[in-house]
Amino acid sequence: MSQTSGKHMICDIKNITNHTLLSTPNLIKTMLDNICKKYNYTILQKSTHEFAPQGFTAIYLLSESHISIHTFPEKQYAAIDIYTCRQYPDNQVYLEIYDYLIEQFQADLNQQPTIIDRNFT
Amino acid sequence: MSQTSGKHMICDIKNITNHTLLSTPNLIKTMLDNICKKYNYTILQKSTHEFAPQGFTAIYLLSESHISIHTFPEKQYAAIDIYTCRQYPDNQVYLEIYDYLIEQFQADLNQQPTIIDRNFT
Repeated sequence: MSQTSGKHMICDIKNITNHTLLSTPNLIKTMLDNICKKYNYTILQKSTHEFAPQGFTAIYLLSESHISIHTFPEKQYAAIDIYTCRQYPDNQVYLEIYDYLIEQFQADLNQQPTIIDRNFT
Repeated sequence: MSQTSGKHMICDIKNITNHTLLSTPNLIKTMLDNICKKYNYTILQKSTHEFAPQGFTAIYLLSESHISIHTFPEKQYAAIDIYTCRQYPDNQVYLEIYDYLIEQFQADLNQQPTIIDRNFT
């Protein structure tokens, strides 16, 4: 197995029907906090910014790398990245997180994330 | 052309020989600042963290999305992401940035970034 700095999951979540979540920064932060708590990711810093007239960015700097979200409520879309240095043997944990995101956003189930190994070598 | 929230460049920069840059947070921040200045990316917030005994993370929250770097000096490696919502017609600007990163880090030229369109639709 090649050495990696972890797995990076890239999620382009489309056709979001939970507009309340998509448009409410505090709810989005709670969702990300829940993920970090459940999977024991250590949040070192949170950067957030609310754009006018809409759109929200949150970036969590983790001990394990980072999580970011950029929302585009006008497009029913959110771009989410989850990159951790956990040496997961497969994609199961990330796919579980992805299912949670799809469920929370009430988004189209017919989409998949891209999961990339970040290789040292 | 499908609608996108921009392009995301994923760089796993290996075999770095500029150990001074790789181990000096201020020099890394200057490098990222130079990129933002040259390409007119607006920095809204910077999050940084120095790990013990080594390793540094910087995440720039941009008007245009984000830039992140995670360094692993012990592996001669840096994981860099550049994601902006600029509607570039091709990868030219990113490849230019990538060449700059490789040059600054004095890294192996024989590697390529992964560039992904982040699609709304």
